[in-house]
Amino acid sequence: MTERNIRVEALDRPAVDDQTVEIVERKGIGHPDSLCDGIAESVSRALAAAYLDRVGTILHYNTDETQLVAGNAAPAFGGGEMIEPIYILIVGRATSEYQGTKIPTEPIALRAARQYLDAHVPHLDVGTDVILDAKLGEGSGDLQDVFDDGSVPMANDTSFGVGHAPLSETEEIVLNTERRLNGEYAADNPELGADIKVMGKREGDRIDVTVAAAMIDAHIESLDAYTDAVDGVREYVTDLAREYTDREVEVRVNTADDYDEGSIYLTTTGTSAEQGDDGSVGRGNRANGLITPNRSMSMEATSGKNPVNHIGKLYNLLSTEIAESVVGEVDGIRDLRVRLVSRIGQPVDQPHVADVHVSTESGVAVGDVESEVGRIVDRELADLSDVTRRAVDGEITTF
Amino acid sequence: MTERNIRVEALDRPAVDDQTVEIVERKGIGHPDSLCDGIAESVSRALAAAYLDRVGTILHYNTDETQLVAGNAAPAFGGGEMIEPIYILIVGRATSEYQGTKIPTEPIALRAARQYLDAHVPHLDVGTDVILDAKLGEGSGDLQDVFDDGSVPMANDTSFGVGHAPLSETEEIVLNTERRLNGEYAADNPELGADIKVMGKREGDRIDVTVAAAMIDAHIESLDAYTDAVDGVREYVTDLAREYTDREVEVRVNTADDYDEGSIYLTTTGTSAEQGDDGSVGRGNRANGLITPNRSMSMEATSGKNPVNHIGKLYNLLSTEIAESVVGEVDGIRDLRVRLVSRIGQPVDQPHVADVHVSTESGVAVGDVESEVGRIVDRELADLSDVTRRAVDGEITTF
Amino acid sequence: MTERNIRVEALDRPAVDDQTVEIVERKGIGHPDSLCDGIAESVSRALAAAYLDRVGTILHYNTDETQLVAGNAAPAFGGGEMIEPIYILIVGRATSEYQGTKIPTEPIALRAARQYLDAHVPHLDVGTDVILDAKLGEGSGDLQDVFDDGSVPMANDTSFGVGHAPLSETEEIVLNTERRLNGEYAADNPELGADIKVMGKREGDRIDVTVAAAMIDAHIESLDAYTDAVDGVREYVTDLAREYTDREVEVRVNTADDYDEGSIYLTTTGTSAEQGDDGSVGRGNRANGLITPNRSMSMEATSGKNPVNHIGKLYNLLSTEIAESVVGEVDGIRDLRVRLVSRIGQPVDQPHVADVHVSTESGVAVGDVESEVGRIVDRELADLSDVTRRAVDGEITTF
Amino acid sequence: MTERNIRVEALDRPAVDDQTVEIVERKGIGHPDSLCDGIAESVSRALAAAYLDRVGTILHYNTDETQLVAGNAAPAFGGGEMIEPIYILIVGRATSEYQGTKIPTEPIALRAARQYLDAHVPHLDVGTDVILDAKLGEGSGDLQDVFDDGSVPMANDTSFGVGHAPLSETEEIVLNTERRLNGEYAADNPELGADIKVMGKREGDRIDVTVAAAMIDAHIESLDAYTDAVDGVREYVTDLAREYTDREVEVRVNTADDYDEGSIYLTTTGTSAEQGDDGSVGRGNRANGLITPNRSMSMEATSGKNPVNHIGKLYNLLSTEIAESVVGEVDGIRDLRVRLVSRIGQPVDQPHVADVHVSTESGVAVGDVESEVGRIVDRELADLSDVTRRAVDGEITTF
Repeated sequence: MTERNIRVEALDRPAVDDQTVEIVERKGIGHPDSLCDGIAESVSRALAAAYLDRVGTILHYNTDETQLVAGNAAPAFGGGEMIEPIYILIVGRATSEYQGTKIPTEPIALRAARQYLDAHVPHLDVGTDVILDAKLGEGSGDLQDVFDDGSVPMANDTSFGVGHAPLSETEEIVLNTERRLNGEYAADNPELGADIKVMGKREGDRIDVTVAAAMIDAHIESLDAYTDAVDGVREYVTDLAREYTDREVEVRVNTADDYDEGSIYLTTTGTSAEQGDDGSVGRGNRANGLITPNRSMSMEATSGKNPVNHIGKLYNLLSTEIAESVVGEVDGIRDLRVRLVSRIGQPVDQPHVADVHVSTESGVAVGDVESEVGRIVDRELADLSDVTRRAVDGEITTF
Repeated sequence: MTERNIRVEALDRPAVDDQTVEIVERKGIGHPDSLCDGIAESVSRALAAAYLDRVGTILHYNTDETQLVAGNAAPAFGGGEMIEPIYILIVGRATSEYQGTKIPTEPIALRAARQYLDAHVPHLDVGTDVILDAKLGEGSGDLQDVFDDGSVPMANDTSFGVGHAPLSETEEIVLNTERRLNGEYAADNPELGADIKVMGKREGDRIDVTVAAAMIDAHIESLDAYTDAVDGVREYVTDLAREYTDREVEVRVNTADDYDEGSIYLTTTGTSAEQGDDGSVGRGNRANGLITPNRSMSMEATSGKNPVNHIGKLYNLLSTEIAESVVGEVDGIRDLRVRLVSRIGQPVDQPHVADVHVSTESGVAVGDVESEVGRIVDRELADLSDVTRRAVDGEITTF
Repeated sequence: MTERNIRVEALDRPAVDDQTVEIVERKGIGHPDSLCDGIAESVSRALAAAYLDRVGTILHYNTDETQLVAGNAAPAFGGGEMIEPIYILIVGRATSEYQGTKIPTEPIALRAARQYLDAHVPHLDVGTDVILDAKLGEGSGDLQDVFDDGSVPMANDTSFGVGHAPLSETEEIVLNTERRLNGEYAADNPELGADIKVMGKREGDRIDVTVAAAMIDAHIESLDAYTDAVDGVREYVTDLAREYTDREVEVRVNTADDYDEGSIYLTTTGTSAEQGDDGSVGRGNRANGLITPNRSMSMEATSGKNPVNHIGKLYNLLSTEIAESVVGEVDGIRDLRVRLVSRIGQPVDQPHVADVHVSTESGVAVGDVESEVGRIVDRELADLSDVTRRAVDGEITTF
Repeated sequence: MTERNIRVEALDRPAVDDQTVEIVERKGIGHPDSLCDGIAESVSRALAAAYLDRVGTILHYNTDETQLVAGNAAPAFGGGEMIEPIYILIVGRATSEYQGTKIPTEPIALRAARQYLDAHVPHLDVGTDVILDAKLGEGSGDLQDVFDDGSVPMANDTSFGVGHAPLSETEEIVLNTERRLNGEYAADNPELGADIKVMGKREGDRIDVTVAAAMIDAHIESLDAYTDAVDGVREYVTDLAREYTDREVEVRVNTADDYDEGSIYLTTTGTSAEQGDDGSVGRGNRANGLITPNRSMSMEATSGKNPVNHIGKLYNLLSTEIAESVVGEVDGIRDLRVRLVSRIGQPVDQPHVADVHVSTESGVAVGDVESEVGRIVDRELADLSDVTRRAVDGEITTF
């Protein structure tokens, strides 16, 4: 274990659930920033799959820079239309030739992005409402090496990843509010668009949940239908929150609406990208799906990065995995933070620092769990290539 | 008739069929320049239709500036692929708001262009192999007036149109070679791509027809299959030419091929735009579908222009219509040229000059046909709005 | 001489000056189409110079596809401003690597274009009022060969060039009107912009010259100043025309103005590209600087093409050179047309057809000049590489 | 004070300087992400100034979305060159018309960006090495209101800002390393480029400072000169660090170099954007110039946002200002965190939460400073418009 430089210590702050004020945010999958994250990651996965398929190994690429320029729409009860298209520029680096084999990097990226948008924002007619463009260049020379010898890649940067577990109550509510609204609720309520932004604020034992949910005009015939839709979301989220907390919860939905002025959150496509909201990668959710100022966060954009050797991506995904594994396997942990720091030129599975800070439940000492925690960290680091594989296969979310 | 300033005179040169050397060219519908022409005109028609549908009148627009930047492909026997996408930028002017009604000009243009490409170059996967972009601005202020009072529009420029009839034998051969190859022949021979360039050169009574035809790799399994395909085109065109002339005809197909070097005209999509051939509007065929240096030509790009009031488009289409009508209705005409010149501020149906030059068959004097020709010109000018209507409906080709 | 297949015959139409109706047009250097021609040709020259400088030979390139998207301006007496920038996309093919030497093709192109605009449209602030973009790809594989063995290149296409001399009176007037307005007149009259479009129409012995001249608002303080400027141009052109003809001449300037409606041709930058007029290469003037429907014209865009081996460019420039040389050296020629037709795979200095059609002055027979004309054609063809050199050096204009 | 809902409490974690492991990073002004931040903020300031100048009030805009696509360069000892240009797309929203006055938003943005790059990366020849493009649309309707009545704007979102003071030793070192290298050191050592990335890692009492510094080839004649340059930076930073700490410090510079493979950090322009490193806004430094995973951070991109009413920008800038003021005015504070949370529709100077967490020096109780701290917070909130003014004037840095 020492070769991995793993340390387990007491957390130097209260568990998040015990702090007085807590703020949590999640930008839903239809938010312009999240759309960029999602495109970037889908492009990454498609490139990785293409490299594996064509040359048997994942070549150098990083596609973590999609830029979305908002369009212009004229939503209307019963169905409006887009007036000016959204413009999305896929940006990044990707190796286009390897030992004589050419890789159609931009066609692969364009197809992946289109399929992603078709799947997640079906009311957007890509090619009509969305202009998809791509600028994928080659990387700098020293990064074009291949990762094909089966050995562990070396860290190419001094980077940092951080993960946490378990989620606080507020975090659970915020994360699940968006996921379940965009899942089961939207399946039954087609008026709900994918652009759902959730902000949770807890002060002591009171949690305020603010939801901004884009409604889709084709399924909203009138202002009454709109208010019904808003009420439906509020009721659903209020019930949902009860599953995660006994604290007092108040849910507000689309608080910026002004019925008197006729200003409501009505959209044609279900995303605010249709009208004035630009977006880009890495500006929203961290790798665990949340923005959590109460917790240590990495600024690294995880989406779109190469999961073989981008140390920032690997360590953010892995530290989250480790945190969740520890909490799943070890009893008595109230809050836990895992930090991984790389050193240039050192194997990625041997971090420069791997420190775990633990807040235990009452009656449990850090020393009680230390060795078990350390063992899990060691195991997960040794299994780092599994994180790569699961990222390529889309089994791990990045935003 | 005098108010239309129509003059009928003897042609001041020999009929084209009687000239010693004649050169004729046609860029087929899959040629990069023709693709731009086709997109520009399809965008024009879609906008005109949308204006009529939404505000009852055709507003100001001109979309005659599509630019195509070639892609990169890796054709291969049995089926290759595109490596870098083609980039197509739709450029022009279009009114986006009228009396409070918004017109989604760019979405309309993007949809029309995609449908055009899907229909005419089906092996191109638009959105993956082609990036479609659009920059449609507003026109200059004084051009944003509407044409809605039923009156004849005024010419907004001093412009010029010219038309000819009948086609010479060489012209017939060149025009029909491309049209029938891209029609019935391609229907039976899926290996033939849409990018067919035909050059006809006649010296005296010998006609050389040179065809450059992009073959589609998915339907060509081997070099033998390729040479069979080339032979097939040559035989078909040789037979076809016999329908239009008794002169000696030699047909050559894909003369730039070099089998020894493995350099053949094999493509993945059927257009040279996939690999290094850029294109733009108005660089290829004139309004009658041909490039004819033996005849007077207008430099005006007809495709994409507004058919209500763009005087260059109207006069090029109309003069061709007139020429064909005269030849269809009046006997004894061997060659005929119609020229229309506008004057700014004058109604478009009252050209500044409308002169018709006629070469009659032996035994027929110009005086014999003068009045009948003049009457037809007058009638067609009076019916100018019919040209507009048919251009909007796609009944008239522009390239 | 026979190996060059040169034929000299009588012109099969009246000299242009003897035809009843003649139409001539020139788009001045500030016209959006001409700006694209000028940029394309300046990019071509810069690339040729860079290739010569860096690898000692001119590599494959063709940059004949610049696309201009108009901006938006708010001209005002005393000085207005641009509101939305013009967008210019430089498109083409250029070899970026040769035997290990990298050629910065896009930076070279961008610099050349900027310098061209700075020199010719100085009121345009490139980078603020103009967005300059570039997409230069590699050519298709079989065109990437080099032209470095000193031998005569082979024609890579069946192409056609045509030249004429001498200019008719109307042509002289149209050409010189624009050139001298943009030269000596503008030097003394800074209110005159570079976008000057001249249309000449001759009916019998009456010539109408219509000038559309963009005035620059910073130098026009009032409507009175504007009308003075218009009057100045009219007087200058009227005097100028007298130098070239004894026919009756009427000059009209900015006929689309409507003083009552306050609609005048006032600009901030001196080009209509600032407000709604898009442009592209090859849509305007032919290689001799004019659009002449009375004469045979090639549709080939000369500007931006490779002057070493692009047969269309070479033959258009050379046929014009030949025509001018013949008229300069041989007396008694009233009108002359030179046509050159290439055949794929044949040396470019051995055209498939080189026919010269001559209209002689009264008292001179074609037979009198035939051998001298033939000799000149032969000499000029043998000296074809001189055309390449002069095109590279910018000694030959292409539009 | 209560109406501002200000709370002062004990910090719930150790002061950062007392934590075991600390990680701090700063991306220097020449880093691709920082270039985007800098452009976005300079565009913001230019728009604000233009609005004030033209209509007397700052209209709605947000220009926080610049995307940089890396170029390609061929650095060489003594001076290399760029091979493919960098592409920079300025994205955002900006009001282009107000009460009949038009605002040239894109020209303003393009000029500001060019001036910014000229000032900060002078070896980049903007227009040749950099293509600057812009897509500024209008905002959504309900955001186009004006902020001109002198009243305090209302928060238009539920947002969050956080600030800290004083900087830890490691933070001081990281921040000043980049600032002083890019300042006085670069003034004397022109080989140092602006792209300087500094990572500080402290474990207990040992601080590792890792500097990646792009060297400019025109000022580096040989590998020896390069190693001298690297040594020079290391010595300078080592000395510099001594000014801020008594802890053990080790400085490493350009650790990714591999002299044997000839892989060194040599650039032509001083930024890695020249070769393979893309960038965008909000991906790097937080508002205080640092990335500090040990501290609470906001994900909000501060650069480019409207400083009048963008609550995320205001609260991030203001909370930092407050923290610094408190530390400057109140003795005995070892670490301090200020958090501001807004509520939609409430005046921006009345945050929903304004909590201050204080770690005091030994011998000082939180109660000793509570009222003084609260008074300062109240004063600064009341003076919020001063933050706006100073952001517009460029007196506050945002990254």
